[in-house]
Amino acid sequence: MTIYNFSAGPAVLPKEVLEKAQAEFLDYATSGMSVMELSHRSKEFDEIIKGAESLLRELMQIPDTYRVLFLQGGASTQFSMIPLNLAQGRKAYYVVAGSWGKKAYTEAVKLSKTIPFEPICLASSEPQNYVEIPSFDAGAIDPQAAYVHVTTNNTIEGTALYQVPDTNGVPVIADMSSNILAADYQVEDFGMIYAGAQKNIGPAGVTVVIIREDLLNQEPVLSSMLDYRIQAENNSLYNTPPTFGIYMAKLVFEWVKDLGGVAEMEKRNREKSDLLYDYIEQSSFYTSPVLHKKQRSVANIPFVSPSAELDVKFNKEADAAGFKNIKGHRSVGGMRASLYNAFPRQGVVDLIAFMKKFEEENA
Amino acid sequence: MTIYNFSAGPAVLPKEVLEKAQAEFLDYATSGMSVMELSHRSKEFDEIIKGAESLLRELMQIPDTYRVLFLQGGASTQFSMIPLNLAQGRKAYYVVAGSWGKKAYTEAVKLSKTIPFEPICLASSEPQNYVEIPSFDAGAIDPQAAYVHVTTNNTIEGTALYQVPDTNGVPVIADMSSNILAADYQVEDFGMIYAGAQKNIGPAGVTVVIIREDLLNQEPVLSSMLDYRIQAENNSLYNTPPTFGIYMAKLVFEWVKDLGGVAEMEKRNREKSDLLYDYIEQSSFYTSPVLHKKQRSVANIPFVSPSAELDVKFNKEADAAGFKNIKGHRSVGGMRASLYNAFPRQGVVDLIAFMKKFEEENA
Repeated sequence: MTIYNFSAGPAVLPKEVLEKAQAEFLDYATSGMSVMELSHRSKEFDEIIKGAESLLRELMQIPDTYRVLFLQGGASTQFSMIPLNLAQGRKAYYVVAGSWGKKAYTEAVKLSKTIPFEPICLASSEPQNYVEIPSFDAGAIDPQAAYVHVTTNNTIEGTALYQVPDTNGVPVIADMSSNILAADYQVEDFGMIYAGAQKNIGPAGVTVVIIREDLLNQEPVLSSMLDYRIQAENNSLYNTPPTFGIYMAKLVFEWVKDLGGVAEMEKRNREKSDLLYDYIEQSSFYTSPVLHKKQRSVANIPFVSPSAELDVKFNKEADAAGFKNIKGHRSVGGMRASLYNAFPRQGVVDLIAFMKKFEEENA
Repeated sequence: MTIYNFSAGPAVLPKEVLEKAQAEFLDYATSGMSVMELSHRSKEFDEIIKGAESLLRELMQIPDTYRVLFLQGGASTQFSMIPLNLAQGRKAYYVVAGSWGKKAYTEAVKLSKTIPFEPICLASSEPQNYVEIPSFDAGAIDPQAAYVHVTTNNTIEGTALYQVPDTNGVPVIADMSSNILAADYQVEDFGMIYAGAQKNIGPAGVTVVIIREDLLNQEPVLSSMLDYRIQAENNSLYNTPPTFGIYMAKLVFEWVKDLGGVAEMEKRNREKSDLLYDYIEQSSFYTSPVLHKKQRSVANIPFVSPSAELDVKFNKEADAAGFKNIKGHRSVGGMRASLYNAFPRQGVVDLIAFMKKFEEENA
């Protein structure tokens, strides 16, 4: 039975990448050592981390005025690091378009009880169950604010922000965890971009931060590990980084480059996701919660059947048929097909065939 | 040429563990997925993380009154998390016996500029270049203090603390990064133990925390990711954990268990390190900086030749002969043989033969 892994993260990785890592698992570049056994100060690892950065710079056309960091702790740690480093004594705006954007805002509020700054919810679609990205008036933004925080792809709700909004000149900070390298953004439209690796970059445990140099904190913050400037000055080697995860990320970056880069990935992802959206749209059985076509995520496609009972049945039968991890997030239920870069087109075709059959049997 | 990896971390891993991980790299437990591709909420990963915890509890005989956490960010992140969670409004003592203990204290001082608590250096051997573990008078410790922080093994300086000191009833918190599972400690002697994985546990990117339940913070701290109670209540799954690293740790725990457990590892490590110490001791060419025999680390053995020039020559020739990463830490120079659990006895025998030859040629 063919297995298709629809997991929202940790997620499917390119088979070619896994095979390459497997082949050199015990002996990296004839060093006689596994990548995992390499000192992070060795010349071998130096080449890996510099190679990873260089490839990411090429793929995303990152200007020289931005620093690229490989950190730990996931996007959730960034939720605290961002205001800690960037917002002190100032206003920080949050566009809340999904559960993760809400978490980012909530962490900022938590931090503001200790560190003086003013987190402000600029707009929220929470009352609409996040079926759309909320709009806002740029004129309402204090031009002296530290940043406006957005989420480019809402992993749970299936919406995405493709047009960077007008923020009255205030830098935009984007949580790009679930569509980095999957949709083609211009880095210079952002003050900072960050992403957990476990969707389109590599295994869980690596967090990529791309930050404009002039936004690096001027003053030290309360912990060296949470200090962007210290991490940047030490080239992500302030302490031992997650070496194997960074190596895997490098292999994935090479794979994306070989396939034609980010624009090509977005093209393929649009083809894959359009297949599924088109099928859902013509069906009277399945429904997508996403309100606007132009806000459809190419990475995560949530959908439901006519009832919660049928959703349970769908998930059970899909799992048995090899469609793994297609169950929706525990907070919203239903189903969710995560179609990241490494997810094959054939998996979407086969899923649609399964959905048709399920509809016929249960309509 | 046989390669021996003396790296202080990331370090040599058991070959059997690497081979097992390699064999199932593309298909874990007939799931059709790599461990890296498993959702952290899947039943497969649930078994991995629970299995890892259960094995570690068995190996270290961890009482039920302690929680075991798998976190990110290394020991360096713990340097901030410990006082943030445990010390607020109180005194926190630090025994500074090496570069890492100094860093722990320095981070506490940094944090205390924002969070009200009083970090105190209880004793330091820094003026003696850390050639010994400093002693202190337990009577000098305020019994209301939050904790006394120690480092059980000084990775750079080669000393170790085997007898847990009298701390006037105040909980001892130990950075055990470089000798966890390599020397046999009683968990109940400590309020908390923590360790970066990249020496005796697995790949870099996982941090193990073992904390007595009654020491968990009563009040939330400024960041959810830095909050021990939140991490404990979510069983280390507050956000996506470093899944592959935890899987590797589980394999290493199984390997330690198969070999006979921690007492057997300490026995083997004492045999290995005694071979090298005995050789250094009888030599008039090589010198160990460690002042007291009973404070000798079984994990990291630093030594020097008669001159810095000969050290450079030694390191160059050793590297060419397959003795990798034997160069001392950039802060102290010389040489350092890290003989962690996975380091084979034959590697020590071969190193001594090389050292003899080098001595003969250069004395």
